[in-house]
Amino acid sequence: MAISLTNYQKILDQIQQEISGRDIPGRVASYIPELAKVPADKFGMHLYDLQGESFYFGDNEERFSIQSISKVFSLALAMKMIDHDLWKRVGVEPSGARFNSLSLLEDNFGIPRNPFINAGALVVADVLISSLSNPKEAFLTFLHELTGDDSISYNETVAASEKSEGYRNVAMVNYLKSFGNIRNDVEEVLDFYFHQCAVAMSCKELSKAFLVFANQGKLLNSEKQLLTGQQVKRINALMQTCGFYDEAGEFSFEVGLPGKSGVGGGIVAVHPNHYAVAVWSPPLNPKGNSARGMAALERLTTLTGYSIF
Amino acid sequence: MAISLTNYQKILDQIQQEISGRDIPGRVASYIPELAKVPADKFGMHLYDLQGESFYFGDNEERFSIQSISKVFSLALAMKMIDHDLWKRVGVEPSGARFNSLSLLEDNFGIPRNPFINAGALVVADVLISSLSNPKEAFLTFLHELTGDDSISYNETVAASEKSEGYRNVAMVNYLKSFGNIRNDVEEVLDFYFHQCAVAMSCKELSKAFLVFANQGKLLNSEKQLLTGQQVKRINALMQTCGFYDEAGEFSFEVGLPGKSGVGGGIVAVHPNHYAVAVWSPPLNPKGNSARGMAALERLTTLTGYSIF
Amino acid sequence: MAISLTNYQKILDQIQQEISGRDIPGRVASYIPELAKVPADKFGMHLYDLQGESFYFGDNEERFSIQSISKVFSLALAMKMIDHDLWKRVGVEPSGARFNSLSLLEDNFGIPRNPFINAGALVVADVLISSLSNPKEAFLTFLHELTGDDSISYNETVAASEKSEGYRNVAMVNYLKSFGNIRNDVEEVLDFYFHQCAVAMSCKELSKAFLVFANQGKLLNSEKQLLTGQQVKRINALMQTCGFYDEAGEFSFEVGLPGKSGVGGGIVAVHPNHYAVAVWSPPLNPKGNSARGMAALERLTTLTGYSIF
Amino acid sequence: MAISLTNYQKILDQIQQEISGRDIPGRVASYIPELAKVPADKFGMHLYDLQGESFYFGDNEERFSIQSISKVFSLALAMKMIDHDLWKRVGVEPSGARFNSLSLLEDNFGIPRNPFINAGALVVADVLISSLSNPKEAFLTFLHELTGDDSISYNETVAASEKSEGYRNVAMVNYLKSFGNIRNDVEEVLDFYFHQCAVAMSCKELSKAFLVFANQGKLLNSEKQLLTGQQVKRINALMQTCGFYDEAGEFSFEVGLPGKSGVGGGIVAVHPNHYAVAVWSPPLNPKGNSARGMAALERLTTLTGYSIF
Repeated sequence: MAISLTNYQKILDQIQQEISGRDIPGRVASYIPELAKVPADKFGMHLYDLQGESFYFGDNEERFSIQSISKVFSLALAMKMIDHDLWKRVGVEPSGARFNSLSLLEDNFGIPRNPFINAGALVVADVLISSLSNPKEAFLTFLHELTGDDSISYNETVAASEKSEGYRNVAMVNYLKSFGNIRNDVEEVLDFYFHQCAVAMSCKELSKAFLVFANQGKLLNSEKQLLTGQQVKRINALMQTCGFYDEAGEFSFEVGLPGKSGVGGGIVAVHPNHYAVAVWSPPLNPKGNSARGMAALERLTTLTGYSIF
Repeated sequence: MAISLTNYQKILDQIQQEISGRDIPGRVASYIPELAKVPADKFGMHLYDLQGESFYFGDNEERFSIQSISKVFSLALAMKMIDHDLWKRVGVEPSGARFNSLSLLEDNFGIPRNPFINAGALVVADVLISSLSNPKEAFLTFLHELTGDDSISYNETVAASEKSEGYRNVAMVNYLKSFGNIRNDVEEVLDFYFHQCAVAMSCKELSKAFLVFANQGKLLNSEKQLLTGQQVKRINALMQTCGFYDEAGEFSFEVGLPGKSGVGGGIVAVHPNHYAVAVWSPPLNPKGNSARGMAALERLTTLTGYSIF
Repeated sequence: MAISLTNYQKILDQIQQEISGRDIPGRVASYIPELAKVPADKFGMHLYDLQGESFYFGDNEERFSIQSISKVFSLALAMKMIDHDLWKRVGVEPSGARFNSLSLLEDNFGIPRNPFINAGALVVADVLISSLSNPKEAFLTFLHELTGDDSISYNETVAASEKSEGYRNVAMVNYLKSFGNIRNDVEEVLDFYFHQCAVAMSCKELSKAFLVFANQGKLLNSEKQLLTGQQVKRINALMQTCGFYDEAGEFSFEVGLPGKSGVGGGIVAVHPNHYAVAVWSPPLNPKGNSARGMAALERLTTLTGYSIF
Repeated sequence: MAISLTNYQKILDQIQQEISGRDIPGRVASYIPELAKVPADKFGMHLYDLQGESFYFGDNEERFSIQSISKVFSLALAMKMIDHDLWKRVGVEPSGARFNSLSLLEDNFGIPRNPFINAGALVVADVLISSLSNPKEAFLTFLHELTGDDSISYNETVAASEKSEGYRNVAMVNYLKSFGNIRNDVEEVLDFYFHQCAVAMSCKELSKAFLVFANQGKLLNSEKQLLTGQQVKRINALMQTCGFYDEAGEFSFEVGLPGKSGVGGGIVAVHPNHYAVAVWSPPLNPKGNSARGMAALERLTTLTGYSIF
């Protein structure tokens, strides 16, 4: 089952060539100006294996807005702190609906279906605010620890834009509050949430950060256990069943890896015990996931011949 | 990552002891008399690894009604025959609803969300009827090939009982027909469907049959490629995201393996490239999945320390 | 508030002229051949007042398929027989959904929202079968009593066509049966239901039959109290809130009378203590109600200057 | 059909006696302290006929929080100003759901089903803000004109309480804004909305104010046409089909009059061309409508022997 180092690079080269040549329709997210103005032809990919080797192509070192990919980091941070009680306030089931749907909350008395839809991520943000004296700082510190790079930070322009247009998220957090499932001030929750979405990272940095989920909770080349094996199993399971909104089944079906996408055009996926990989291409398919990113990862598991399944 | 033969048996012994001792509430399915009269304390488990070694405890050789587990076999058989066109008639997304919900069909113009809810399995049954001259015979032949045991057959009493009480499935198939997504006579589709659910198999037989999904599509100790690697990836992915109705997320979260349950109290799960495992305990939790079966499999991946994640 | 006899005829003449001249888009129902072949330009209207005077134009004496208008007659007949218990098996609320939606049943444990959606009418049909030795005969006898015309009967070709295409109604009745809300054989219920929909009546006959709902339950020029005042209040109330599927609000808003439509293109409406009126024009609007029929009745209450509101 | 003056008072006396004696379960609204502390045994009723005669019992002159009854006044005011365009932004169909449901908005792209659910009333409030320089003042002026009583005003404590607990309404208005169906600042819309709900009026004042809907749009004993006949028809039709949330059908079925309820325990109903009537009793049934109020109005149309049907 082992794949030699050469092969990964060869496969990535092939993916770059294949996907660049294909006409894959998609639209760059436009609800805030900062996302709309990112060039549609940006395309990069970076894979880190557990030997610390790194394979890549294209715009893999350029930072972009990680958006919903941040939900994996905030969930991991929350699980480190209050694992058990968290699951009383958020579910673990795929939603069968859009990422920003409010309707399902109604049937569940304010318990979001999972931590990767917006409603669930807002509850996780609320949990972090309750547990941390300075959540925005702690969130960056966690990212610095995962990547070894202290320059990762919030794009304040993006955060401010989200805020000015985020009526649906304002609706969501107030709705959750009406059920008692937001404990802190709604403004504070939204401020933290909009900031976590506005972190800028590159494919290289994202794949390095996600190695912890491929490495049973340990930092690479370290004995430091950041997350327990059970926590990693659960986070990966949630990415598998809920990481792509109402396209989670499709991603599992075509790619066969746990992963998480963001409207900035990024997708990160994990092959437990093997590698973490990030891809970036801004145009989104109708379900809100990077069109080329999905295709590139399908090629990766097809060309390597193995996925988690 | 390798686990010695001894360990599996030791772990199964520990599971038997732990779970037998625990008070796990649940109710035996009672909608047909044949299921209702199965003793609630039946409990067995059987694990086959890819070396052909076998580990087990309890009532692992007693046959029971496989019910919805049959949907994995019928899907595999249909994919062998008309893989591409199948996905125009059935989706690959988790449903977020009960196994027998009709409401989602309405939003999807008669395209069931996935092949493992009843509506989807009825479409798969229709596909098999269109493609096979004698689908009931071909279905058994497929099971005989997977297990090497020609005595596996339909329990005609169960099939007849399903028929006499199956108003909701009759509703479902007529509803699908109203959208044009059933091509054959509704009686014929129901007859085949009720029969496939009424197959009787033991944990030992089920785990052996599911080895094909752990072995990249090949029969064990054979070069015969029954399914392609891509087909196996997709079937496992569907089990992962849709195998447990509206508890698919929970099963992934707690167990971390692709699997499929049936209301007869059986669950089969697969660790690709490692093993297939079946467990049987009739009392069901409120979501319709074997309560002890879920717990036993959670112990399996926790005690072995590894899942697909 | 009184309106002289002359005025009604003058107003109907004006309606005929106005509506005939207007380009009102619509499509003739085509799901069975017998409805599809009715000429789209048929247009007639007939109004009976409580003095027994009659006003009309166009094809008002030509019979057409009354379809869902029959649900008012079957409800009235059922209320005469088992008024109180009926309301345990069917609700009185507007559905907010299409006439043939199955999804709402799921949330209501098999209790249809009201007797005028298909599911509700199937339950009413079941009630009549339980209460009458020959329901098909009794149903016609009731129509003969209301109209004084013994020639009104079933169009057997239409009834047979409905049967051969009625997969969704077959689905519905089986679904209701799965909840225990159908007591008789599903075939018998469907046979009666398809027959009641296949009654052929003219605008003249329909308006005469509906006089009972304008006349507090009494036949015109008779002391015979067919229905109590309370029953008439309730039937009219149900027509008002549920008579036009998901366009009930629109009909109330524009017309302001209780009424009931059918996919054959007929609409009957009642002004309690004043008149009953029927209109027929086959082309349907997107909600399934006669496009010209709706417009004609809007003109009626606007030109007369009074509705029930 | 005429009813003598004596009879109305006799009937109201009988209603008071009957209903006071009956054990009708219900719970006083408690989501804000000001509503929770109103004594549960308050009970009053006031009927104004078109001759200007007035009939009453109990606490009919005590003011209470009119809450959602205010939606009829704000709709009437908005229709006076921008009748046509209003209906592009709000529908006229019953919702089949709770008054504060957000889920239906999703299916309708931010167009509330009708102006009497909270979402619809927020859009109407937005319309008034766009059309009036001082909407809060204009709203009171309209009430003063309808009642002839300039002392009617906002209860500022109630308005402030609504604001501090109104997370669901904050959610709703932000959600509507995300669809572009709120044009003004959300704070301003909420402030006006919470104020209109916080108006305090008595049964006597409410029934007098609603006479305009019984009198074809004219103030009593005046030639002043406040609303056109068509506007009154439409407002009454909306009360009939949408005035009682998901109990609109039940109210039509039992009472047979257009009406509107509020969580303060008030209900106002109209018999066009005859009378307007208000009843007040704080305990609410499970659907959120005054339990005794519903019963009292059912007695009214049953004992008088006539409703609009």
